[in-house]
Amino acid sequence: MLKLAQQPREHILELKKQWESQYSEMKAAGLKLDMSRGKPSSSQLDISNGIFDCLSSSDVMKAEDGTDCRNYGLLDGIPEAKRLFSDMLGIPAQNIIIGGNSSLNMMFDAISRAMTHGVYGSKQPWMKLDKIKFLCPSPGYDRHFAITELFGFELITIKMNSDGPDMDEVERLVSNDSAIKGIWCVPKYSNPEGITYSDAVVKRFAHLKPAAEDFRIFWDNAYAVHDLYIADQLLNIFDECKAAGTEDMVFEFASTSKISFPGSGVAVMAASENNIKQIKSILTIQSIGPDKLNQLRHVKYFKNMDGIRQHMKKQAEVLIPKFELVTNMLERELTELGLVSFHKPNGGYFISVNVPNGCAKRVVQLCKEAGVVLTAAGATYPYGKDPDDSNIRIAPTFPPLSELKTAMELFCLCVKLAGAEKILSV
Amino acid sequence: MLKLAQQPREHILELKKQWESQYSEMKAAGLKLDMSRGKPSSSQLDISNGIFDCLSSSDVMKAEDGTDCRNYGLLDGIPEAKRLFSDMLGIPAQNIIIGGNSSLNMMFDAISRAMTHGVYGSKQPWMKLDKIKFLCPSPGYDRHFAITELFGFELITIKMNSDGPDMDEVERLVSNDSAIKGIWCVPKYSNPEGITYSDAVVKRFAHLKPAAEDFRIFWDNAYAVHDLYIADQLLNIFDECKAAGTEDMVFEFASTSKISFPGSGVAVMAASENNIKQIKSILTIQSIGPDKLNQLRHVKYFKNMDGIRQHMKKQAEVLIPKFELVTNMLERELTELGLVSFHKPNGGYFISVNVPNGCAKRVVQLCKEAGVVLTAAGATYPYGKDPDDSNIRIAPTFPPLSELKTAMELFCLCVKLAGAEKILSV
Repeated sequence: MLKLAQQPREHILELKKQWESQYSEMKAAGLKLDMSRGKPSSSQLDISNGIFDCLSSSDVMKAEDGTDCRNYGLLDGIPEAKRLFSDMLGIPAQNIIIGGNSSLNMMFDAISRAMTHGVYGSKQPWMKLDKIKFLCPSPGYDRHFAITELFGFELITIKMNSDGPDMDEVERLVSNDSAIKGIWCVPKYSNPEGITYSDAVVKRFAHLKPAAEDFRIFWDNAYAVHDLYIADQLLNIFDECKAAGTEDMVFEFASTSKISFPGSGVAVMAASENNIKQIKSILTIQSIGPDKLNQLRHVKYFKNMDGIRQHMKKQAEVLIPKFELVTNMLERELTELGLVSFHKPNGGYFISVNVPNGCAKRVVQLCKEAGVVLTAAGATYPYGKDPDDSNIRIAPTFPPLSELKTAMELFCLCVKLAGAEKILSV
Repeated sequence: MLKLAQQPREHILELKKQWESQYSEMKAAGLKLDMSRGKPSSSQLDISNGIFDCLSSSDVMKAEDGTDCRNYGLLDGIPEAKRLFSDMLGIPAQNIIIGGNSSLNMMFDAISRAMTHGVYGSKQPWMKLDKIKFLCPSPGYDRHFAITELFGFELITIKMNSDGPDMDEVERLVSNDSAIKGIWCVPKYSNPEGITYSDAVVKRFAHLKPAAEDFRIFWDNAYAVHDLYIADQLLNIFDECKAAGTEDMVFEFASTSKISFPGSGVAVMAASENNIKQIKSILTIQSIGPDKLNQLRHVKYFKNMDGIRQHMKKQAEVLIPKFELVTNMLERELTELGLVSFHKPNGGYFISVNVPNGCAKRVVQLCKEAGVVLTAAGATYPYGKDPDDSNIRIAPTFPPLSELKTAMELFCLCVKLAGAEKILSV
């Protein structure tokens, strides 16, 4: 079949009629499915259940430095947990601060601290400045954008290319505007597109010369070990920054939320010595230290990076069929019709789909009316406004495979319907 | 024996010589003891070890509303944990937000949010104001004062009476100065004096008429169930505020840090409906929600308030001999000499000792030189400055009884020495 837009008008009308009838049938089936958030499925979580058996009342609850993990102490985590994350991220343990159960919360706190106290190198707290701006490569992660929106930053959309953010634009903007204080990045299996930044992009990040002396790259390495196929290789930004003399410019974040349990995982932040020192000077007032027993559980369960890799292979076994179902259906149902473009990711949690301009909201609405909740159209752009109304984030991990199939059938149908409506309206 | 200050000079010199000789002996023994922080002892923690067996891989990890506690969801906690804290604090579950592992962190976050976004009823974020002040009943909790100091508040010392803060002064100050944004309170078994606020004091708090429309009472009910003897009764400030129409004026905090495990407990905040709504509007950006599995563990272990009460009785059995050792030794060694005054608390974690004016730093120094670390003198006052240099906080919970005895022998000796030095220097 050829591209829908190139078909004769009568043929499109005929197809639309068929699709409407199929849609009515599906709507009548009374579906109730949620593909809105990147949540692991129950069977994925089951893979991690061994963590529950790692600490029982007969165990000694001591960290390797002798600290009783049941008591106060260790502001930045137990040594063996720091070492595990050090191995995962390729960053020395002394540059790591273990946090609570959420890297997003650590990012929020990092922005909040910058607002009230500045970061290392700030002349004043960011809240004392007249105007502050943040770069948002888009499509991107809505919860990142929401944090900087909450604190009153002007959000600037940066185009995403196939190898990462548009670095020409990033370089041009940060070198000329000292109000730009940072940029949100998900450098490996980006949320939502599943793109991994190329070596050239990472190197250009490390060599940025921002006008703001306290500019920070928020490097959310959320999917560092979340490979499905042959792993994308991400250059270590810390090594690159060190070589470029810009190591104070980057805050890196990660967590086990999508390795072990969302909400009961272990989060981590990495930064230069100067940054760590400044952060700890505030953290020592803010925190009594993170949950050491949960760190101990995680280290006992995963043991080392080999353990994490083995574990993530088991997760991939559950996820691959879901990702393939989505990409195969998009390919089969929509690509030839010219109604979607998407990147098939090698890992991560999402598939980002571009439908014809002006159709994303309509697709999400049609799906919702038939009982399938998708991430809101526009959510992947600053202020929830996709200028093309084209991008939809598909989160295939949560529903069981059979439900996912039904949901994708509906999704493809809704894209066809919205596409036909669009073409016919011109 | 009569008061030291009333003895003939020669007699004091003679006693001092004896005490110096005893001090040299103790110093030579090479002690290494820490009584600086309110940490539970290892044997106290053992009482809670059953918590580790409450979740194993074969358990169903669902909250009573069906939420899979291993996954994302529930920003403010699982219903059964909210109910447990509701029972503990006498506050409806809908007024409760469960947090992470630390109520101190929740207090920090509450202040931080107020700085960047204000509280319910604020005309602007507190950080936009020229001058902000906070009331600090003293002696009080150093980590409270440190939070407001970090954010640039002017800290105002309020005298503590035997039934709570000097309410005449509190009323006078808050009604006349709109820069005063709040007050720190530990209303039951106050840190460090172990005083419980009288009904009259609580009622006067509820009837405050602050000049600042966004004044907040930070009601840190850290020792709500930490009774040693017949429990002190604290009036429920929420009920009093509701009756007075001032329910938006109070933020209450508590945690299980000193019920189960410090660092791996469950913290909680309670507030009015208006406050909860404003807080959640920010929290939904900040947080993915607290660790639900740890909440589930706690609820499964304690079950209900009866379970907590039984558990705290076991803790009291470990703590009572330590508190009695301290108070008996102070009484026997120092009271008749006129060298101390202190309140014997019915619960909590501390004994607050007043030594003769100008002697506290010297006592702490003498103890340190002989190997016993106490809380820094002055720590219980804003900016770490005790105007009388008189108050010392004794934290008797951590050392085993035998070590505590040795440490207290040294402490009493150091008070005698410092007292004698002071008297002789006049």
